[in-house]
Amino acid sequence: MTVRMFMGDARVDAIAPDDRGLAYGESLFETMRIHRGDIPWWDAHMARLTHGTQRLAMPLPDATRMYAEAMALLDGADGVLKLQLTRGGGVRGYAANSDAAPFWMLSMHPLPNRIDSLDTIWCEITLASQPRLAGLKHGNRLEQILAANEVRAANADEGLMCDGAGRVIAATSANFFALIDGHWQTPVLDACGVAGVMREWVLAQVDAHVTSLKPSDVECADAVFLCNAVRGILPVQRLGARAWPRTHPEIRALQAALAQSHPGFEPLLEAS
Amino acid sequence: MTVRMFMGDARVDAIAPDDRGLAYGESLFETMRIHRGDIPWWDAHMARLTHGTQRLAMPLPDATRMYAEAMALLDGADGVLKLQLTRGGGVRGYAANSDAAPFWMLSMHPLPNRIDSLDTIWCEITLASQPRLAGLKHGNRLEQILAANEVRAANADEGLMCDGAGRVIAATSANFFALIDGHWQTPVLDACGVAGVMREWVLAQVDAHVTSLKPSDVECADAVFLCNAVRGILPVQRLGARAWPRTHPEIRALQAALAQSHPGFEPLLEAS
Repeated sequence: MTVRMFMGDARVDAIAPDDRGLAYGESLFETMRIHRGDIPWWDAHMARLTHGTQRLAMPLPDATRMYAEAMALLDGADGVLKLQLTRGGGVRGYAANSDAAPFWMLSMHPLPNRIDSLDTIWCEITLASQPRLAGLKHGNRLEQILAANEVRAANADEGLMCDGAGRVIAATSANFFALIDGHWQTPVLDACGVAGVMREWVLAQVDAHVTSLKPSDVECADAVFLCNAVRGILPVQRLGARAWPRTHPEIRALQAALAQSHPGFEPLLEAS
Repeated sequence: MTVRMFMGDARVDAIAPDDRGLAYGESLFETMRIHRGDIPWWDAHMARLTHGTQRLAMPLPDATRMYAEAMALLDGADGVLKLQLTRGGGVRGYAANSDAAPFWMLSMHPLPNRIDSLDTIWCEITLASQPRLAGLKHGNRLEQILAANEVRAANADEGLMCDGAGRVIAATSANFFALIDGHWQTPVLDACGVAGVMREWVLAQVDAHVTSLKPSDVECADAVFLCNAVRGILPVQRLGARAWPRTHPEIRALQAALAQSHPGFEPLLEAS
């Protein structure tokens, strides 16, 4: 894994043992698609990261410096760039208790295997409601880990998670949209879930309702897709007992629009 | 900060950039009172850590080795020993996806300043309900950080946190007991909160009710104390608008019993 680490403006060689990201998950991260040595969605990721630092009262490193270091790490190929940002070091105790420079780390990762549609399950673990953290891509991810372990045990591609009130919120690492009565619908994320960069792109393309959805709403939908900034838009072909054998034309149209604006997200051709 | 780091059985010099504790807070920790170069409550901390690894399906390093390394770090003085345990390294993605050796780190910290009673507030942030994580001392602590920031802003010593249903659960870094109608009561921790080692000790001493408590129950109590494994038993002298000017005799009796079994927890003499 190619990696560069920094404390504030200074490049460093090691993660500090007193790092508060390591101690408490006091951190934010962004996972960015790299296309031919470029980071086409950099601005959208920086906007979310900036919003996260404001919500968590964390310092934000200089964005120009972060961009320059990120570009220096790319080698012209496709892949995934991860940016992790923590509060930095601090003495023991939960209150942010120092003016330490923030720690940030850039790392390169391979693209996931391409896949043309998703076999998904309903996860048993629910997402806890915490409005103060809702929408953020923060470093407290034990719920997603436990859910992803369920997905792996079921030999599925992804899993949908509900909150404690039985509303469907998101997949373990993607947002979702469901086509219901001719309208795209996606969950409101004011109590839990991550507000994805690709979800924002989709919301700008289609006149979607941001609403509450029950599992039966999703199972009865005419089409369902998941989306995230690494994999783009992926149709769900199975969700528990429900199957959608063919990709809906509206999903194909969205995939085509995404590929047109961002060639890295060209969908696979499906055998017909 | 004196620190020793390990991956499985091997001592290491650095934290791996792909550590899943740093990435996602996939970690557990214990904060142990050191008294004259000894760890009197080691077994209780190991019991909770072991329980946590089982709940999170994380590997547990050899306990005998951890104890030997911990003892080697002590210098005969008083202090606080922190043990952090993470799943270790792994490729990007939430599912635990490797058989990497667990990372663990021991670090020594000074005792907090002694204090004889606590000035506390009600925190505005609530604790999210997540039964799968309830009771564990895991590394997803953003809620406690935000709460502790409220406490610091109010210039208080600690803060009590409720869950989303308005039940009082815990302080940011301590459990609590309230004396109501002659009986000690403490919250049930099946949906959120950390089941503290000192809470267990208190439960073994007094015939306490483990129940649900509203803020008004706590404010109307005859006495309230907080407890944790570093500071022992500390009376609350103020909670928002409610004051308890004198330490209740039953709290003094519990402090005396604690000091008798563990001399490190001798309470301060209060000016009378």
